[in-house]
Amino acid sequence: MLKTPYLLFLGDAHDQLAAKVAKGICDWRPEYAIGQLRLPGCDADVGLPDLTLEEARNAGAKTMVIGVANRGGVISETWKDVMVEALESGFDLASGLHNRLQDNPHLSDAAARHGQELIDVRVPQHQYPIATGEKRTGKRCLTVGTDCSVGKMYTSLALEKEMKAREMNVDFRATGQSGILITGEGVPVDAVIADFMAGSVEWLTPDNDPDHWDLIEGQGSLFHVSFSGVTMALIHGGQPDALVVCHEPTRTHMRGIPNFGLPTLEEVRDLSLKVARVVNPDCKVIGISVNTSALNENEAKNYLANVEEQIGLPTVDPYRQGAARLVDALEEL
Amino acid sequence: MLKTPYLLFLGDAHDQLAAKVAKGICDWRPEYAIGQLRLPGCDADVGLPDLTLEEARNAGAKTMVIGVANRGGVISETWKDVMVEALESGFDLASGLHNRLQDNPHLSDAAARHGQELIDVRVPQHQYPIATGEKRTGKRCLTVGTDCSVGKMYTSLALEKEMKAREMNVDFRATGQSGILITGEGVPVDAVIADFMAGSVEWLTPDNDPDHWDLIEGQGSLFHVSFSGVTMALIHGGQPDALVVCHEPTRTHMRGIPNFGLPTLEEVRDLSLKVARVVNPDCKVIGISVNTSALNENEAKNYLANVEEQIGLPTVDPYRQGAARLVDALEEL
Repeated sequence: MLKTPYLLFLGDAHDQLAAKVAKGICDWRPEYAIGQLRLPGCDADVGLPDLTLEEARNAGAKTMVIGVANRGGVISETWKDVMVEALESGFDLASGLHNRLQDNPHLSDAAARHGQELIDVRVPQHQYPIATGEKRTGKRCLTVGTDCSVGKMYTSLALEKEMKAREMNVDFRATGQSGILITGEGVPVDAVIADFMAGSVEWLTPDNDPDHWDLIEGQGSLFHVSFSGVTMALIHGGQPDALVVCHEPTRTHMRGIPNFGLPTLEEVRDLSLKVARVVNPDCKVIGISVNTSALNENEAKNYLANVEEQIGLPTVDPYRQGAARLVDALEEL
Repeated sequence: MLKTPYLLFLGDAHDQLAAKVAKGICDWRPEYAIGQLRLPGCDADVGLPDLTLEEARNAGAKTMVIGVANRGGVISETWKDVMVEALESGFDLASGLHNRLQDNPHLSDAAARHGQELIDVRVPQHQYPIATGEKRTGKRCLTVGTDCSVGKMYTSLALEKEMKAREMNVDFRATGQSGILITGEGVPVDAVIADFMAGSVEWLTPDNDPDHWDLIEGQGSLFHVSFSGVTMALIHGGQPDALVVCHEPTRTHMRGIPNFGLPTLEEVRDLSLKVARVVNPDCKVIGISVNTSALNENEAKNYLANVEEQIGLPTVDPYRQGAARLVDALEEL
């Protein structure tokens, strides 16, 4: 869907966190990212060479990816000029901003004039079918979570990295805007029409080799009332053979809905399994992935050990420790 | 949303079943339906006077409702002429067909020319918010099912009828095209963008009087892999105080997906409650509604008695027996 390699546009990002998507590309697809473009006032740096548009084009970059989230998702005036210039220089533009590139007349005019593409990854690119639930060949692993934004994408990408290192037959399947920008393709499930959600996940993870694994990026949580329907569709459309439960241990309430406490890991394990077994009776939870970034080394070690004893499944922080033990568990299935 | 009363367009319906929507309007909103319009070859009859467009206008009809589903959901040539004529005569047109009225240039031209509206009830009419899960005042009852098309809308409408007869404070809340055409308003949840599904249900069932009941029309089934995400959003967006489990006893597999058997009533009860209690810890299943239309009187009686003994909850066919016992259970809550 997106032409690689990328020039990463950081704009005037006010801090490193605002450049999360660019950071994700550098972490997981470093071979796609050949430089960064920063405007005056930018306080983010993903450690790539600062390139002008011309330098980036000469180095082979084909798409300028908006690797930054700004307040309100709007395209500011200062951004617009560089974006038009990029289109004039022969770049496609790709963005996950709320405000669509295609709805900006300056950008759509420039894109049409120069034969370049504007790719809004929040916008579904296909007419997806209604899910059939038919058993597909190949194997699938889905990340589920106690909450939104607890590390489901990160966990799936860490699994992919370890499985590729072991030369396993594997694909990461992006289901959100960051995942799509990082890997260049996928389905923005939360932007799909309700009737076709599960079908879009089936479409994303079709029949494959018997030894092939799709690593499906999870979304939301069965316990997050705003987005649980999306999670449900990912489970029923994904017909996973394996689930990894993801968690962030310092979260005091569900993201964005302060009246809701987090479910326990056991609750997420049990409900996810019950629901997954409707479509795949052999589905298993194979491990727990904990985002321990808010804990120090010792706290993290203790927390992971405690959870492992409590749940009886391999429990890792894939950032601190890699995903090897989770992949071992997948290989044992 | 729809202007009443209606003229019901039956077109060239090849049998009574094809006129299901018109039949639903006659059953549940007889005061909205002042006549039927049938074309040559029509084999359906909903028992209303056959009126010409002119007669219907003179009798006060404001909207011609396409009360018939034809093969493929297309608007045939024979229909088109009458539809254009209806617009010319001052009718709005309302339809739940797959092919949108608004996408037909003959119809959109005629509507614009004569200042009439084309209402495609499959198309969401609002920008719905993201669900917050905040506790709303008033009470809500949602129908859930072992499968699609087992009588959830019918059950909710039968509850409404009985509650209105008891002068209770109640509203039926339509969530599908038939329900919207029958009652003139609602949200077509399965056509809403995934992220906003639960929010659209919150929007549909806002704060209300403490003694007020919203009767929310259920969709799909938590066990139907094609549409379970929609069901989930209805439960979490609806934050029901009461659930009624709906079932059709002769179904041998889940509708449209022959490899899937039906869940038991206990499975639907337990999973629905577990999920509903995330958003409303006091939620209860108050009864079972069985569509016994495929059984004879005696079979139906036995079946209902057996289920009632098995589950220990009031079990009725609201078509055969009315919904009084279910409403008794709601009043006891």
